[in-house]
Amino acid sequence: MITEGLMKQISFIKEIDKLKYIQRRTKLFNSERCENDAEHSWHLAMMAIVLAEHSDKPVNILKVLKMVLIHDLVEIDAGDTFIYDTSKNHTNTDEERIAAIRIFGLLPKKQAEEFIAIWEEFEEGISDDAKFAKAMDRLEPLLQNTSNNGGTWREFNVPYEKVYAKKKAIKEGSSSIWAYAQQLLNESVEKGILKK
Amino acid sequence: MITEGLMKQISFIKEIDKLKYIQRRTKLFNSERCENDAEHSWHLAMMAIVLAEHSDKPVNILKVLKMVLIHDLVEIDAGDTFIYDTSKNHTNTDEERIAAIRIFGLLPKKQAEEFIAIWEEFEEGISDDAKFAKAMDRLEPLLQNTSNNGGTWREFNVPYEKVYAKKKAIKEGSSSIWAYAQQLLNESVEKGILKK
Repeated sequence: MITEGLMKQISFIKEIDKLKYIQRRTKLFNSERCENDAEHSWHLAMMAIVLAEHSDKPVNILKVLKMVLIHDLVEIDAGDTFIYDTSKNHTNTDEERIAAIRIFGLLPKKQAEEFIAIWEEFEEGISDDAKFAKAMDRLEPLLQNTSNNGGTWREFNVPYEKVYAKKKAIKEGSSSIWAYAQQLLNESVEKGILKK
Repeated sequence: MITEGLMKQISFIKEIDKLKYIQRRTKLFNSERCENDAEHSWHLAMMAIVLAEHSDKPVNILKVLKMVLIHDLVEIDAGDTFIYDTSKNHTNTDEERIAAIRIFGLLPKKQAEEFIAIWEEFEEGISDDAKFAKAMDRLEPLLQNTSNNGGTWREFNVPYEKVYAKKKAIKEGSSSIWAYAQQLLNESVEKGILKK
C-alpha cells in the first residue's frame, strides 16, 4: 500500500537533494575545491561514529547522528553563513526557523515535529548530545584549514582570537579532542598560517 | 591526553575525505551533475532515518546508518562500478576486500574490525539490517533516474528487465516501498523512458 505518509517522505527526500548545491567556504582536505553541505554532513556523521568514545559525557549516538545529518538542511532556504562573518549572526535566525518549518514540514506531522525538535536541540547546544555534535562541526573545518595551509583563516584574515573563540565549543564536548585541537591551533600559529 | 587511538582515528577521518571525489554515474535530481559517493551516502542515511518505519522487519537503525555511511568507502581504492556494467561483477571483489582492510585498518584495531564486519554484513545482504540498507541503495537512483527523464537507463540503454532485476532488492527490505518502486518502473515504461 502506497500511503500518503510515504508520499510525503518521498517529497522530503527529493527536496533535500538541494543540500548538495549549498557551498561552504571551507575546502576539502589538501584541496582547492569547496565542500558542499551534504558532503560536510556525511563527514560529521562519520566523525561522530568514530570519535564517540571521546565524548566527556555519555551520548545517544543515534541522536547525535540525526543532528549532524540534518543540521544544515535549513541552509537550502537560508543559505550558508560563514562562521567568521561579522555582519550576520550565525546563530538561529528567523530565516532559518522559517526554513526548518517549511522543509521538515514536508514530512508527516509527527516526523516533522521530531526533526524540528532535534534541529533546535542542536542549535541550542545545551544538551550533551548537542555539545558533542557541535564539537564535530567545529573540528572538521579545523582539520581542513590546517591541511590547507590556513585555508579560510588566511583567505579571510581571521585572527587567532576569533578562531579560538569558535573552536572552544570543542571543549564542551570532549576534553581529549580539545587537547588535540589546541595543539593544532598552536602549531598553526607557529607555522604562521594563523595570526595572533 | 592525545592518545595513539585518537591519532589513528584522525588519520582515518582525513583519508575518507577522498570519498567526495568518487563520481557515480547517476545524476542529482533533475540535474546534469553527477553525484559523488559522499553525497550519495549522506542521502541514503537520511532516507534510512525517514523511511525506517516501512521496513518489513524490525531494524537496528544505528547499524543501518553505519552501513549506508560506510558502504562505499572501499571505492576510494577500488573505484565505483556501474551497477549495470556487464564486464565487471558489482558484488564483493577481491579489490574491494583489500581496500576495506587498508582503509578501515587505519582505525584502532577493535574499531577496524567492527567496521569491516558491518561492511561485510551489508555486502552479504542477508541480515534484516542489510536488506533494508540495500533497499535504500536501490531506491535513491530509481528516484533520480525517474526525475531525470530516464537518466542512466537511457544513457546506457539499460532494458527494463535488467533494471527490474536490480530493483527487486527493494522488495527484500520493504513491501510498501517496493509497491511504490514498481509503480515508478511501470510509469517509466509507459512514458518510454525505460524500454521493455
